Amino acid sequence: MLHQFKVTAKSSTSKARAGELQLVHGRIKTPVFMPVGTLGTVKSLSPEELIGAGTQIILGNTYHLYLRPGCQVIDLFSGLHDFMHWKGPILTDSGGFQVFSLAKLSKITEQGFSFQSHIDGSKHLLTPEKSIEVQICLNSDIIMCLDQCIQYPAEKKEAEDALNLTTRWAARCKNTWQEKTGGKNALFGIVQGGMFEDLRKISAQALTELDFSGYALGGLSVGEPNEMMYDVAEYSLPILPENKPKYIMGVGTPKDLVELTARGADMFDCVMPSRNARNGQLFTRYGTINISNAVHKTDKNPIDPECGCCTCLNYSRAYLRHLYMSKELLSYRLNTLHNIHYYIKLMETMRQAVCEDRFEEFQKNFYNDLNQGEKYEKKS
Amino acid sequence: MLHQFKVTAKSSTSKARAGELQLVHGRIKTPVFMPVGTLGTVKSLSPEELIGAGTQIILGNTYHLYLRPGCQVIDLFSGLHDFMHWKGPILTDSGGFQVFSLAKLSKITEQGFSFQSHIDGSKHLLTPEKSIEVQICLNSDIIMCLDQCIQYPAEKKEAEDALNLTTRWAARCKNTWQEKTGGKNALFGIVQGGMFEDLRKISAQALTELDFSGYALGGLSVGEPNEMMYDVAEYSLPILPENKPKYIMGVGTPKDLVELTARGADMFDCVMPSRNARNGQLFTRYGTINISNAVHKTDKNPIDPECGCCTCLNYSRAYLRHLYMSKELLSYRLNTLHNIHYYIKLMETMRQAVCEDRFEEFQKNFYNDLNQGEKYEKKS
Ligand SMILES: [Zn+2]
Ligand SMILES: [Zn+2]
Repeated sequence: MLHQFKVTAKSSTSKARAGELQLVHGRIKTPVFMPVGTLGTVKSLSPEELIGAGTQIILGNTYHLYLRPGCQVIDLFSGLHDFMHWKGPILTDSGGFQVFSLAKLSKITEQGFSFQSHIDGSKHLLTPEKSIEVQICLNSDIIMCLDQCIQYPAEKKEAEDALNLTTRWAARCKNTWQEKTGGKNALFGIVQGGMFEDLRKISAQALTELDFSGYALGGLSVGEPNEMMYDVAEYSLPILPENKPKYIMGVGTPKDLVELTARGADMFDCVMPSRNARNGQLFTRYGTINISNAVHKTDKNPIDPECGCCTCLNYSRAYLRHLYMSKELLSYRLNTLHNIHYYIKLMETMRQAVCEDRFEEFQKNFYNDLNQGEKYEKKS
Repeated sequence: MLHQFKVTAKSSTSKARAGELQLVHGRIKTPVFMPVGTLGTVKSLSPEELIGAGTQIILGNTYHLYLRPGCQVIDLFSGLHDFMHWKGPILTDSGGFQVFSLAKLSKITEQGFSFQSHIDGSKHLLTPEKSIEVQICLNSDIIMCLDQCIQYPAEKKEAEDALNLTTRWAARCKNTWQEKTGGKNALFGIVQGGMFEDLRKISAQALTELDFSGYALGGLSVGEPNEMMYDVAEYSLPILPENKPKYIMGVGTPKDLVELTARGADMFDCVMPSRNARNGQLFTRYGTINISNAVHKTDKNPIDPECGCCTCLNYSRAYLRHLYMSKELLSYRLNTLHNIHYYIKLMETMRQAVCEDRFEEFQKNFYNDLNQGEKYEKKS
């Protein structure tokens, strides 16, 4: 199989692990963070800048790309890679979450989602088969099964129905994937079950029986308390096959990445570094700074003197604040570059700590630095 | 003098010429186009991208930078160069034109402009002395004298009064420049006089007597017919000193650059390549294309297969259209990069043609290509 996963090191003090995942467009090292490139671009950045920041794999949104530019255009390029000039691996989501959160959703049936486009109101039917077909058109390295998300909080009955539908859809996804790709690209199943331990277990077992290239935890970061999310990961990740990559979808803050890596997660994606960058929020080891803060107006220092990103190497906080206050396009770009770099380096640091079996020490340092945050922003 | 200008070649069939201008932050080759970096950034581009596109010198707007971030911030960086991470030469305008077009202008007196900021309504007085001081704070390689612009069309009396005030201000600017810089940075005078040949002559002679490092034609591209602008250049440029650079401010289309270079202009600046890029208008040798046009939806070709810019090397029209239709930040950047590259290469091509004394042939080819424009966009 092309999409082979190998655990290469384990922490002796936590469930954190390091691994390698071979995909059609390259091999990635885990734990890994995947910047989100919703519409075939990680907002404001070029592929060269993503590579410069250490990006190994990006995420594309099937719902968005299906609506615009559509498969007719992407097919001309034999997938998303050539279309957007990104040569590395791409993971695509199933489209289900965006249908749920963005589209005007008319109906969920056994067949799939009926919805209307948020752009032009056009009507569409997203079935498990259709989702896989669109992701095959995108030539995604990692295809995600269509799943049903639920709100938080949710009744147990609702969570149970959704996980059962998700399991039946997962089987249909696997059939389509097997038929149309011969198993070339990877296919991941998505564990649902809300915040209920027994339901998560049922979901995980059912998906494991179907045998996927990897497994994701869906339905997290939907408004539940952080500790609850960590608990779900804590009891759900160990029951998934140890020789398969484990991906927590749509999460999270730097702290989330650390806590969930400690619980055995291998892969993450989140819009947070890029979205917050566009709102002037910048991540540092000492916590988040808001570049619009007047304290930065005359600060000649970079965001983080120890950061090696192009933004920190070349630009001061004073200049970044000026760009942000002036709503200059370069502001979004330089801020995003730093934040993506921060996220990627955090993952690299964790990987290194696992490989050298000093994850506990890493965690201690991480929290020590973070607790200095407020002081740091005032000092600067 | 640091700001030495040398004519290195002349066309035998037109007044076009090639030269070199030594400035504090480097030597530039003319004829030259200066991308506009209003607020200390050429919108959406990094300095590295500007250099990659062949940019030798950029323009900064004194009015904008004076209001935001202000000299208090810029002074910390000893000028605009370190603040914005641009190591090459910078020309700054005097601020007069923006006061005239953007600010709420309360009064023009012998002393200067009284105006209110377009950002917060704060009151300011821009005198010739103040304009030079702000430009010195910016550490501009080429400082422009404060001048009075007029509308088009204007009565002759109004044009005459404005040119006379401009001349008196020019003398005050030169005094301040001499006192505060010892003549280190270059100082250019601005010829006014509306569309009146005798007034332009009076202005040019008066400024020549004051002896500046270079001369600009102001008050053009204000709504007059193209041919009228070319006429003003035709009779004004030759009466300015041959051993000094001649700069036409705020102009223009590719055709304008060709026609004015043919009449002896050495320097240009214009927001057109960057502003039009953000509106999806892209320049090619065959004319302008609008990337939103449906004809580009499935076009795998670059904007111009012969263009060597990073946009044309890596991206298709289909992708650029997709980004533009999706209002993605990368759209503005990739489009701007191409247009700036187009403008810079056009100037380089003209320079080469002058050096090899085949400017007439260049002009013929330029118009031949341009006349194919419509066909080209349809074909594509
Ligand atoms: Zn940085
Ligand atoms: Zn190009």
